[in-house]
Amino acid sequence: MDIIVQKYGGSSLSDTEKIKFVARRIVETKKKGYKVVVVVSAMGKTTDNLINLAKKINPSLPERELDLLLSTGEMVSVALLCMAIETLGEEAEGFPGYFAGIKTDNFHTKARIQRINPGKIMQELDKDKIVVVAGFQGISSENAITTLGRGGSDLTAIAIAAAIKAKLCEIYTDVEGVFTADPNRVKEARLIKEISYDELLEMASTGAKVMQSRAVEFAKKYKVPFVVKPTFNKKGEGTMVKEMEVKEGADVSSVSIDENQAKITIFRIPDKPGVAAEIFTALGKENINVDMIIQNVSKQHYADVSFTVNINELDKAFELSKKVGEKLGAENIEKDTDICKISIIGVGMMNHPGVAGRMFSALAKVGVNIEMISTSEIKISCIVKKEDGEKALKQVHKEFIENNI
Amino acid sequence: MDIIVQKYGGSSLSDTEKIKFVARRIVETKKKGYKVVVVVSAMGKTTDNLINLAKKINPSLPERELDLLLSTGEMVSVALLCMAIETLGEEAEGFPGYFAGIKTDNFHTKARIQRINPGKIMQELDKDKIVVVAGFQGISSENAITTLGRGGSDLTAIAIAAAIKAKLCEIYTDVEGVFTADPNRVKEARLIKEISYDELLEMASTGAKVMQSRAVEFAKKYKVPFVVKPTFNKKGEGTMVKEMEVKEGADVSSVSIDENQAKITIFRIPDKPGVAAEIFTALGKENINVDMIIQNVSKQHYADVSFTVNINELDKAFELSKKVGEKLGAENIEKDTDICKISIIGVGMMNHPGVAGRMFSALAKVGVNIEMISTSEIKISCIVKKEDGEKALKQVHKEFIENNI
Repeated sequence: MDIIVQKYGGSSLSDTEKIKFVARRIVETKKKGYKVVVVVSAMGKTTDNLINLAKKINPSLPERELDLLLSTGEMVSVALLCMAIETLGEEAEGFPGYFAGIKTDNFHTKARIQRINPGKIMQELDKDKIVVVAGFQGISSENAITTLGRGGSDLTAIAIAAAIKAKLCEIYTDVEGVFTADPNRVKEARLIKEISYDELLEMASTGAKVMQSRAVEFAKKYKVPFVVKPTFNKKGEGTMVKEMEVKEGADVSSVSIDENQAKITIFRIPDKPGVAAEIFTALGKENINVDMIIQNVSKQHYADVSFTVNINELDKAFELSKKVGEKLGAENIEKDTDICKISIIGVGMMNHPGVAGRMFSALAKVGVNIEMISTSEIKISCIVKKEDGEKALKQVHKEFIENNI
Repeated sequence: MDIIVQKYGGSSLSDTEKIKFVARRIVETKKKGYKVVVVVSAMGKTTDNLINLAKKINPSLPERELDLLLSTGEMVSVALLCMAIETLGEEAEGFPGYFAGIKTDNFHTKARIQRINPGKIMQELDKDKIVVVAGFQGISSENAITTLGRGGSDLTAIAIAAAIKAKLCEIYTDVEGVFTADPNRVKEARLIKEISYDELLEMASTGAKVMQSRAVEFAKKYKVPFVVKPTFNKKGEGTMVKEMEVKEGADVSSVSIDENQAKITIFRIPDKPGVAAEIFTALGKENINVDMIIQNVSKQHYADVSFTVNINELDKAFELSKKVGEKLGAENIEKDTDICKISIIGVGMMNHPGVAGRMFSALAKVGVNIEMISTSEIKISCIVKKEDGEKALKQVHKEFIENNI
């Protein structure tokens, strides 16, 4: 009998009526002839509420205790969902993460799964029970409760699916699936039926909030096929995510905008080996993630270097840049938050050299100036002025998605 | 170094300010040179709120899932209290019940502690940490989370104190300690400085809500001395509970009233061996607890039997009594909720034969008629009309406590 793993997020479990609805979906799946393992998040805003409570007591939020605290949220969901399933005449077995055999390292609040002992899950499935597992949590080698970081329930579901060789992992959510662009911003955005792991990963890095990257990386590594589906629209088929072959044509699968970017420019530093390294080593040591980098053409052995960081890290990055820049004798250091990043993503883009040109032309057509460009095998990103973002997003979506049916 | 176990109830932890206050008390105790283990209940009304949530989903409240659900309440308290302790510069280690080595039987929602493996607690104490344990919960031989029933955190504290040979167990609460009578009803009521396990047990059975009886029985069995103290009045010394020798004089330590009693009378049944047994066997089979029984003097081989039960069980007891009574040919069966029970409790009462007489005289002096009487080694209870209850309570308190300084 095939096994299906279903994951329900907090917005799918935010009140008792929704929990009952979810229980019915689970029981229907079992009645179709599957063994079912369910992974749940904490109800609605529970996690945020617990964090706020903890902040009132100890603003430094000690991580070990925070994990113990937050892990209770998913346990409540497990218990209530089991109760709801049992009112429908099926037997359910609920497990906190540690009882489900999810072993992690000792890095509290961002633990990584080291292995899963699925023995107890399999044992209960064999008794014809529906197994409900608390997502987002595990147990460390020191026997302390750990959590996997925001969005960790997706990872729990994917990892369990890999460990028990599930036929499919279903990630239920409050949206219809993955779209060609944010449907709140581009009304022509379309649901994507199928997408590859790599494309989904790139989407996360370009500002499209879909799923925790670690969960997608895990799915890719262990080849776990999964589908992102709407909880409350039973007809919604969602987006299938799996390994995909490079296709001919239809290169671009999605377009995204990231408005949480900022740019730092260091003007007129010596253009000699090791200078760039000095800047980015300093930033790396402080765990600041640099996204795009450009260095202009050298003029008389001097160059300007620009790079982008997430806006949350701007202040720290700017201070560091000033320190290093002054040491290097830079003429000036500037920051700019008035930018955003427009990206297109698609498998096999590199096999179609015209894609970049089409993107730049599309932007030019609506008068948008490109400040920086970066490309990867399946992505092209352009930094533009923030005020041009909306216009750029829509035009690029029209060029690659709407005109490309 | 001596160990002190402290237990804080839900009302002592109902908001973040109270949790910080409790943390300070704990740290002060450690600074006095003790090793400290703390047992906590769920914050304020958390347990009731979780039960209400569960009822909306599955009114039958499946017990295994309910235990998983309720156990989260104490875990939240553990995590927050540890955080609060750490802001004061002490190290704290928080344990859910199962990590603390509390092994129970498999009777969910009312599990009994079978043994405690205090190894992990001792290990953390030896590292100079304050150990905080979730009360009310343990783990069954089937590796499921169990709970110990209402008031179970007291039991957790006493049992841990026994297992780790603590010098003292402190039960912190929202009252000043144990009183000679309910201070809300008898304004002359006084705090009792010392009381024996047996007296405290009898008080619970006579309607005075002090502590879960199982916790007191456990303390008596393992000779764990404990003190019931106010959390928020640091000067309050509370009531010490321990094994006590029979003292001369000052026989009565407390007076109580129980208004949740009801009386059933079966009129005119054959006065022959086995008849009483038939009635009370039938009630016992249905788990109905009978408190007092009187059988009047036989008239021509017929007798009347009256007994009292808790008002919650009256309907069930009355139906059963009618069935058995009719079978025995009883003339009539009546119920009466217009009664209450006045009790006096004191070690060594039986060595002072005048005590019962003094109680009856005190009641007679204020015109209160006695309907039923029962006595034990350390207790005398009288059933009187409900309307006489207040007057009877005050007069008996005056006779034995106020006049007996």
